[in-house]
Amino acid sequence: MIEAGARRREIDEVASELFHANGYAATSVRDIARALDIQGASLYAHVASKEDLLWSIVDRTATAFEVAVEQALVETTTDDPVERLAAIVEAHVEVVTADPERASVFVTEWRHLSPERRAVIGARRDAYERRLRDLIADGLAVGAFAAVDPAIGATFILTALNGIATWYRPDGRLSADRIADHYVELALRSLSEDHR
Amino acid sequence: MIEAGARRREIDEVASELFHANGYAATSVRDIARALDIQGASLYAHVASKEDLLWSIVDRTATAFEVAVEQALVETTTDDPVERLAAIVEAHVEVVTADPERASVFVTEWRHLSPERRAVIGARRDAYERRLRDLIADGLAVGAFAAVDPAIGATFILTALNGIATWYRPDGRLSADRIADHYVELALRSLSEDHR
Repeated sequence: MIEAGARRREIDEVASELFHANGYAATSVRDIARALDIQGASLYAHVASKEDLLWSIVDRTATAFEVAVEQALVETTTDDPVERLAAIVEAHVEVVTADPERASVFVTEWRHLSPERRAVIGARRDAYERRLRDLIADGLAVGAFAAVDPAIGATFILTALNGIATWYRPDGRLSADRIADHYVELALRSLSEDHR
Repeated sequence: MIEAGARRREIDEVASELFHANGYAATSVRDIARALDIQGASLYAHVASKEDLLWSIVDRTATAFEVAVEQALVETTTDDPVERLAAIVEAHVEVVTADPERASVFVTEWRHLSPERRAVIGARRDAYERRLRDLIADGLAVGAFAAVDPAIGATFILTALNGIATWYRPDGRLSADRIADHYVELALRSLSEDHR
């Protein structure tokens, strides 16, 4: 018998694949059970509802982003906004490329959560984006970045980073590391003083 | 009796709203008919299938992007890659903000088209992206842009622009024109030589 934690991770993985491929709304618990080759009733021994599965994926992905950025900032032992921004971008790209399907479900399907859970995730996404926004505002104040609307700058960068989930393939032309390098460069330049 | 063309546009609009709100897969022809306050059978007098509705929306949105960029480039009477890139970004943002729901359906739901139609739209999207990629490569060759992988630069910019569809509100803090200005600036800077 498969250990419960491993089974639960497998369920999340299969649910993530199906939510990504067909959308949350079009995926039934029966579809997920079928893909796992188990009975719907057995699946309900592990999860209470389809929305619980979405919640589990979205909650863990939000945590992955938060932890990665927190960790990257702790390791960045400088106050330089440019370096701190680079660390955030790199950490974010790493989470996206580590599991693009999950990242894609996080970005596009979270709106199918119940209003309560949507509010929780919305607040966490806001806080995450605010961190980037505040960093841009700080950099602006010390002349590290060009004049920019910090909210627009943060949104511009985050949506570009999240877009990686829609096209990244582990066996593609560029490795995850190279993509991260490119995106750090593009993001930093988008906020840098223009001397053309 | 409502003129057939007007009715058809209304159907597309309602379908676009529902596909955006709930996803294509979770929306039935019956849902669309109900939102229009007509019978499902009456709806089938206008459209052959749900996929035809998605195709209509996606096809017309693809055309809107193509025409807007074509027009913007015709009006840009210079070979300067920087100005031409600015024209493309501005035109693209205008199409997204003119109808963010439709743009969002175009970006996220097109994968639900039949394989044949998906191939057609995929080819048009590739050609659209290629135009931006080639422009970046041209600018790179004449020293107008910083060293960048043209494909990555084009994808970075396009996904950031498409992201506007997910958050733009006509009654929001910034007008569509101001957003276009900001995005032109961010996109140009992301490709400009860095003199920090």
